[in-house]
Amino acid sequence: MGGPRVAVVGATGAVGREMSRILEERDFPLGELVPLASARSAGTRVPFGGRDVTVGELSAEALGGVDLAFFSAGAAVSRAFVPGAAAGGTVCVDNSSAFRQEPDVPLVIPELNGEELEADPPPRIVAVPNCTAITALMAVGPLHRAAGLRQIVISSYQSVSGAGRRAIAELAEQVGKLHGTEEDLLRPEPDALPVGDVFRRTIAYNVLALQGGMDEEDWTGEERKLLRESRKILRAPELEVQATVVRVPVVAGHSVAVFAAFERPISPDEAREVLGAAPGVRVVDDPERDVYPTPLDAAGIDDVLVGRIRRASGRDDALLLFASGDNLRKGAALNAVQIAERLFGR
Amino acid sequence: MGGPRVAVVGATGAVGREMSRILEERDFPLGELVPLASARSAGTRVPFGGRDVTVGELSAEALGGVDLAFFSAGAAVSRAFVPGAAAGGTVCVDNSSAFRQEPDVPLVIPELNGEELEADPPPRIVAVPNCTAITALMAVGPLHRAAGLRQIVISSYQSVSGAGRRAIAELAEQVGKLHGTEEDLLRPEPDALPVGDVFRRTIAYNVLALQGGMDEEDWTGEERKLLRESRKILRAPELEVQATVVRVPVVAGHSVAVFAAFERPISPDEAREVLGAAPGVRVVDDPERDVYPTPLDAAGIDDVLVGRIRRASGRDDALLLFASGDNLRKGAALNAVQIAERLFGR
Repeated sequence: MGGPRVAVVGATGAVGREMSRILEERDFPLGELVPLASARSAGTRVPFGGRDVTVGELSAEALGGVDLAFFSAGAAVSRAFVPGAAAGGTVCVDNSSAFRQEPDVPLVIPELNGEELEADPPPRIVAVPNCTAITALMAVGPLHRAAGLRQIVISSYQSVSGAGRRAIAELAEQVGKLHGTEEDLLRPEPDALPVGDVFRRTIAYNVLALQGGMDEEDWTGEERKLLRESRKILRAPELEVQATVVRVPVVAGHSVAVFAAFERPISPDEAREVLGAAPGVRVVDDPERDVYPTPLDAAGIDDVLVGRIRRASGRDDALLLFASGDNLRKGAALNAVQIAERLFGR
Repeated sequence: MGGPRVAVVGATGAVGREMSRILEERDFPLGELVPLASARSAGTRVPFGGRDVTVGELSAEALGGVDLAFFSAGAAVSRAFVPGAAAGGTVCVDNSSAFRQEPDVPLVIPELNGEELEADPPPRIVAVPNCTAITALMAVGPLHRAAGLRQIVISSYQSVSGAGRRAIAELAEQVGKLHGTEEDLLRPEPDALPVGDVFRRTIAYNVLALQGGMDEEDWTGEERKLLRESRKILRAPELEVQATVVRVPVVAGHSVAVFAAFERPISPDEAREVLGAAPGVRVVDDPERDVYPTPLDAAGIDDVLVGRIRRASGRDDALLLFASGDNLRKGAALNAVQIAERLFGR
């Protein structure tokens, strides 16, 4: 029992469940797991280490004596509890957007900028990037090091699990209502289309190019995160990032179509070589044999898949590629655990 | 019965059925409808004008005496029958890719370059552009006229009906197998995933970033069409077009996320004004009220929907937007009938 006491805040959510699973899978050397959630979910039990552990109610007191806390309960919860916990000595790894843009909070994808965890004294709060940003940056980050990114244009194909477990249920419910009437969807009756609380528009058999609120320039929060987080993680404050975030009726696995322009010419072969040597990236790029990334291939695994790597038309300094990653794992829980492993000396 | 004899080749396919429907909806002044198909489908009946019409077998003889023929049976059929029919006096409106890049064949979206139909003598063969190209160009074409396009980066979200009626059945079948097991798709068992003949990979709860064969530069035919057809239709032979074509589990309605850079500054407000005045385009761009284009909104209607119009980050000469159009209607059958209406004097 010499290992750290580890809290998972938001333990009953989609990312929280994956967090416990990954701690177990990777045999994280914890002394005790402390799953926490809101009063509504406290008292339920989550599986860990071959038994069920009762979820406690989140409070400052519940975080007392916790050495390491993973926060996956949204930005408001993180804002309320992370600063106090960190001041009390808890290392906080935060999956929310609350502190990502704080200058003194490292925003870390270990394979890309893990050295930011090696400050002395080590950081008390570390932010995990947005799930789509992680997927995109795992693909373009190594290319940036090789050839210097100038511009990226990202269109996303995001799964519903990124919006939580209720979102999976909402998709399933709508599919249940519409399945068997697919031919009718050639000329749908708007009034007959199911709508739910999470997406507000029909997500089954549809794509939704608006996720979250917008800023004064009509960019959504998700789109702006791709811009700001790319610049911070790559230490490229001038990088041009254009983004459109779209939800698709996929359960797990976020994908991105990327156009990337560089400071110098870079060929698809060089890009494949760079990405083939990049940790956490798997090049799956043999389209002649139907080998290319899809979210169903990426779901449940650790690597981000990158393929469809090709020269942009008429450009020797630009590439097109497509990447898929598990938004709950590398896009959230796995990345968080990797950060903790570095901080706790593995 | 003084109107033209009109053949629909591929009458039992997804586009062919929509073609008959649109001829009827728009009260096209035809004297007789001649539905034709391969030997396999000949003899079936298709609804038209309140009764069922028997589908004949396609042959050069069957096209004899036909004044106007719509071809929607694939490029090989068009290559085999269009030149002979045109030489025999039939005006051929071809939905396939067979003749789109022929210098003497106009490639026409009537709202954008309908004047190409007014040559004297009038063209005997007119090509209908690719369905995704139509959706994208209906949105960016008017902006090109206003401010001069320099570069477009397109990522598509294409529905399965673009791959024909069997593709709808394949999606429905796979959804039937996977519905109820959505939570399992967080960690899918690859061997348990259904695969069909049309897409070769699982299309339900997935997105497929590879559609069709590739050229020597690893661009797919669909992607290359977006490049070549945009340049031809817009008469912009130097236009930079970058494209990634992705199939999504949507029944009808193709969508595109577009980054567009122009010769001069253009604001989102100016773009909305230009598009608001463009025929065949409907600006749906009030995201605060969840008003933005989705394929389910576009399915079954004539207009291409354009929204999410916003300034590209850090650029006054570039915009981002999202558009959805019915791939069987404006993307194919409606565009073909609009061409015929111009040629036959309506």
